[in-house]
Amino acid sequence: MPLFTGVIPPVVTPLTAAFEVDRPSFTRVIDHLLEGGVHGLFVLGSTSEVVFHDEAVRRRIIEHAVEQVRGRVPILVGVIDPTTERVIAHAKTAQSAGADAIVVTAPFYARTNQSETIDHFRYIREAVDLPVIAYDIPVCVHTKLERRTTVTLAREGTIVGVKDSSGDDGNLRFVMADTADLADFFVMTGSEIVADSVVNMGAHGIVPGLGNVDPHGYVRLWNLCQAGDFVAARREQERLCRLFEMVWVSLPRTSAGSAGVGAFKTAMRRLGIIDTNVMARPQRSLNDEEAAIIDGILRQTGLLD
Amino acid sequence: MPLFTGVIPPVVTPLTAAFEVDRPSFTRVIDHLLEGGVHGLFVLGSTSEVVFHDEAVRRRIIEHAVEQVRGRVPILVGVIDPTTERVIAHAKTAQSAGADAIVVTAPFYARTNQSETIDHFRYIREAVDLPVIAYDIPVCVHTKLERRTTVTLAREGTIVGVKDSSGDDGNLRFVMADTADLADFFVMTGSEIVADSVVNMGAHGIVPGLGNVDPHGYVRLWNLCQAGDFVAARREQERLCRLFEMVWVSLPRTSAGSAGVGAFKTAMRRLGIIDTNVMARPQRSLNDEEAAIIDGILRQTGLLD
Amino acid sequence: MPLFTGVIPPVVTPLTAAFEVDRPSFTRVIDHLLEGGVHGLFVLGSTSEVVFHDEAVRRRIIEHAVEQVRGRVPILVGVIDPTTERVIAHAKTAQSAGADAIVVTAPFYARTNQSETIDHFRYIREAVDLPVIAYDIPVCVHTKLERRTTVTLAREGTIVGVKDSSGDDGNLRFVMADTADLADFFVMTGSEIVADSVVNMGAHGIVPGLGNVDPHGYVRLWNLCQAGDFVAARREQERLCRLFEMVWVSLPRTSAGSAGVGAFKTAMRRLGIIDTNVMARPQRSLNDEEAAIIDGILRQTGLLD
Amino acid sequence: MPLFTGVIPPVVTPLTAAFEVDRPSFTRVIDHLLEGGVHGLFVLGSTSEVVFHDEAVRRRIIEHAVEQVRGRVPILVGVIDPTTERVIAHAKTAQSAGADAIVVTAPFYARTNQSETIDHFRYIREAVDLPVIAYDIPVCVHTKLERRTTVTLAREGTIVGVKDSSGDDGNLRFVMADTADLADFFVMTGSEIVADSVVNMGAHGIVPGLGNVDPHGYVRLWNLCQAGDFVAARREQERLCRLFEMVWVSLPRTSAGSAGVGAFKTAMRRLGIIDTNVMARPQRSLNDEEAAIIDGILRQTGLLD
Repeated sequence: MPLFTGVIPPVVTPLTAAFEVDRPSFTRVIDHLLEGGVHGLFVLGSTSEVVFHDEAVRRRIIEHAVEQVRGRVPILVGVIDPTTERVIAHAKTAQSAGADAIVVTAPFYARTNQSETIDHFRYIREAVDLPVIAYDIPVCVHTKLERRTTVTLAREGTIVGVKDSSGDDGNLRFVMADTADLADFFVMTGSEIVADSVVNMGAHGIVPGLGNVDPHGYVRLWNLCQAGDFVAARREQERLCRLFEMVWVSLPRTSAGSAGVGAFKTAMRRLGIIDTNVMARPQRSLNDEEAAIIDGILRQTGLLD
Repeated sequence: MPLFTGVIPPVVTPLTAAFEVDRPSFTRVIDHLLEGGVHGLFVLGSTSEVVFHDEAVRRRIIEHAVEQVRGRVPILVGVIDPTTERVIAHAKTAQSAGADAIVVTAPFYARTNQSETIDHFRYIREAVDLPVIAYDIPVCVHTKLERRTTVTLAREGTIVGVKDSSGDDGNLRFVMADTADLADFFVMTGSEIVADSVVNMGAHGIVPGLGNVDPHGYVRLWNLCQAGDFVAARREQERLCRLFEMVWVSLPRTSAGSAGVGAFKTAMRRLGIIDTNVMARPQRSLNDEEAAIIDGILRQTGLLD
Repeated sequence: MPLFTGVIPPVVTPLTAAFEVDRPSFTRVIDHLLEGGVHGLFVLGSTSEVVFHDEAVRRRIIEHAVEQVRGRVPILVGVIDPTTERVIAHAKTAQSAGADAIVVTAPFYARTNQSETIDHFRYIREAVDLPVIAYDIPVCVHTKLERRTTVTLAREGTIVGVKDSSGDDGNLRFVMADTADLADFFVMTGSEIVADSVVNMGAHGIVPGLGNVDPHGYVRLWNLCQAGDFVAARREQERLCRLFEMVWVSLPRTSAGSAGVGAFKTAMRRLGIIDTNVMARPQRSLNDEEAAIIDGILRQTGLLD
Repeated sequence: MPLFTGVIPPVVTPLTAAFEVDRPSFTRVIDHLLEGGVHGLFVLGSTSEVVFHDEAVRRRIIEHAVEQVRGRVPILVGVIDPTTERVIAHAKTAQSAGADAIVVTAPFYARTNQSETIDHFRYIREAVDLPVIAYDIPVCVHTKLERRTTVTLAREGTIVGVKDSSGDDGNLRFVMADTADLADFFVMTGSEIVADSVVNMGAHGIVPGLGNVDPHGYVRLWNLCQAGDFVAARREQERLCRLFEMVWVSLPRTSAGSAGVGAFKTAMRRLGIIDTNVMARPQRSLNDEEAAIIDGILRQTGLLD
């Protein structure tokens, strides 16, 4: 059986006005997600603004999550930095802080090819005693994990699963076909808007950033898919798509990166989960006008009266 | 007058077989460059494999360079990591270790826009008391510093210069025109192969990775351009272009990143400057067959008998 | 009600060894598709090698199809060329030759923006009295029809539908949501491998190139989706995905374009539908070794004993 | 000796308000260029809006140019359409209409690879008895002619020269080195803004769209480079760069394509050379406000009192 399945949101990292992790808010985020019924947490992913945090902050984020979760669900930890040895250092931190698995991207800034990327995953797997999940996110690292790369790593046991944020669901389908005989291997999608489709293709989990705002919605979606009620799953997905419209509200004043996570934070502030919508520098936070539009979206989708 | 001009190579970081900085070799690299007549050194640039090194290693590299150079030429230090606060941390290290200026890229992994990128440079400039040089390297960070971005930062005094590795020499020409009235502002090109052209356009310096292999060549090129002997400069440039052919020898077995710096290291090993051609993981080092081809190139270009 | 729904394959154009349209084979292709139960035909799409054919050849292809189909299913005609007036000329040909609708891409070679692209569709709609279907195929024209572009054209009545070959199913979902109140507007996907997903999202039709090889399979898939039998639909889709593996057999000897349509032709030749697998110049046709691999794929997927 | 050298502008095609070729204006454009001292004309290039014109219009444009030039300078003719046979048809038209050479791009819309692109040039060369010039314009065709492709075609005699609009001057330098022993082979750059650099590298000609506005300037630049007066050449180039600023005036209201050629037409109208600044559909023409800005640029660069 796959080690992890279900809804595993990438957890937003709330910040104070001084750009430090807002620990009380972070506690509330975790409680909010667990109350929403999620099956795991993915901390220090892109949605967590991971590359904005140094080693010490990352360690505190993991430890805080571990302490707050108390083993109720598994904690996947992103160990995201440009190159192998630095990822290994993060991986060791994650291991000692209590992670259940690590999530690893292809190298970035450095221009590596698929062969070197395969070696990257192997070196990391050798260096730490934790399950390794490949994170395919070309929009950030500018390398696609090719089908053959992912399947090679899966079949040799270097990775236990893949989290796909590439948007290439056709390719993902072939990865699933190629690994169908590997009972333990799992595939998760990072999509917020075609999650129903990818689960219905056979994916084992979903990792939606928007799940920070509405975990109940994604858990409902997941359960409907598992129950084979595709029509109701689609209806829930369409509601979540309307909610997802928030990610474009601040464009082009902010970048796409700030616009997405910034919208999640702004919505979570409105819902009383976190205290600020502050984004790590140099990202821009959403302003009041943009927050008002997001209020409207929350109302239209039933999250606010 | 611009703070820095002339030939300022991005210094290769030699490694031992155990992937640690090879300090005796590094000493010899610096001596080799200074004997070659270079006007400054750029440590911890892309050619230095900067993103493969953590904070502690970076500090030792800077300190080693400062100690070895003993003020004979200025030392520019790359402070390259994905986001603002982390760059500021590197910048403070650079300052305390004796850097003369810092070299800063746009954010990466994070998807920022031009406005946020402008803020990024401003935050860094405010945080440290060192001249800031913008480093335009879209092939690594996947954001181009637009003409307006660079000129805005130059005119307000946030940056003292730009090091251009974008390959867009037409755009660079407009940046030079827009900043022609700023007596202190300087422009440098990272190109190895059209350095003569860009200097003849009015650039104030060149930062050629290949200068690690043949600093004399680039200093000669620079001097010929300054003397207005464009014909001889072009002839020297063409010889250096033949030397540059080494960067494609290991493709596609290695990535483009490994192929370039790996070739420089392989040539420097052959010339007795460094002990190994080891590349930081997960990059592949050049093999013996590839090294033999590089030997031939060194012979054809007069660097080896 | 939407004007067109169901399975509407883009029809392969069989060629003789002399690179002319092989009319007997073309007749057999059409019969094969109609016997397979398809709901319409799309001639002169990318799969038809449309941009390889001049006006006279295109006219003969349309006329042949019209004559052979005799009104049993609608015939959509691609009018694909770089710019407005030339597309209008093709559109008039299509109209006079008996097309039921025209399929129009964004301009190409010319570098137009979204506003000019909107005008392009408007000019064409004004010039001919046929329903216009937008064809979103950025891999060929290098412009994505943005959500707002498609929805603007739909709401003002310039286009009656969109055929999406962009691979961005998330975006397509938002287009469907934005046009849900337009009873006549339809959305079709060009995907062969996630057709079930897109139909289950609410798409009104599928336009699979692979449908030339196995029309029965896609009609079965379509019917299962309409009947709400998502599990069986997925099983059929997965078989079709295994069949789709043929499109990579000749890479990188041929280009991606030649590899896909060339594989369809090679399979159709093996199935006795067409006489040659010749591709229009300068594309390369598949060789015997590649054809043998495709035979194996046909056997594994039940199309060949 | 190379067949063609010097300044060979891509000739703008003036249009009437009814989108037809404005023949009196076209006559004046040709006279203006010849009086400016150009060494050849390139009709039906991208700047001529070639892909907006059908076969009949193209023929009239060539014939008009041939008739007006009366053999005083050579006429190069673009034969630009997506695929081989269609290019051959244009090539035959060009030959019968009196062209001195044809200019051929890689295929477009169709997704061909480098091998198929090489074949494309060979098939065209075999089909017509005219010198073939390769046109490297990835911004339009989305395929770069790789160094090996161009050099293969040059060495086997398929092409007599290359017109480079790729912006990759480093690559062009290697092409020049690889073909230095071919006495007849020539290299031209399409750049308006680094023309001096590329000529000083050894290029045999320049093909500047902006040469329609100021042919004297580019002829002066060319002559200064030939005389070895690099300093004066650079000064002239810098004036031409200031003139080139016109190409950004209408962005983003128009596309980049419309903005460039549209600006040339607007300037030429102001200088009394052509009657309208109309662009072929769906491109947008520049408006009065934009024209006023261009007036200012013409004044600042000495073209208008």
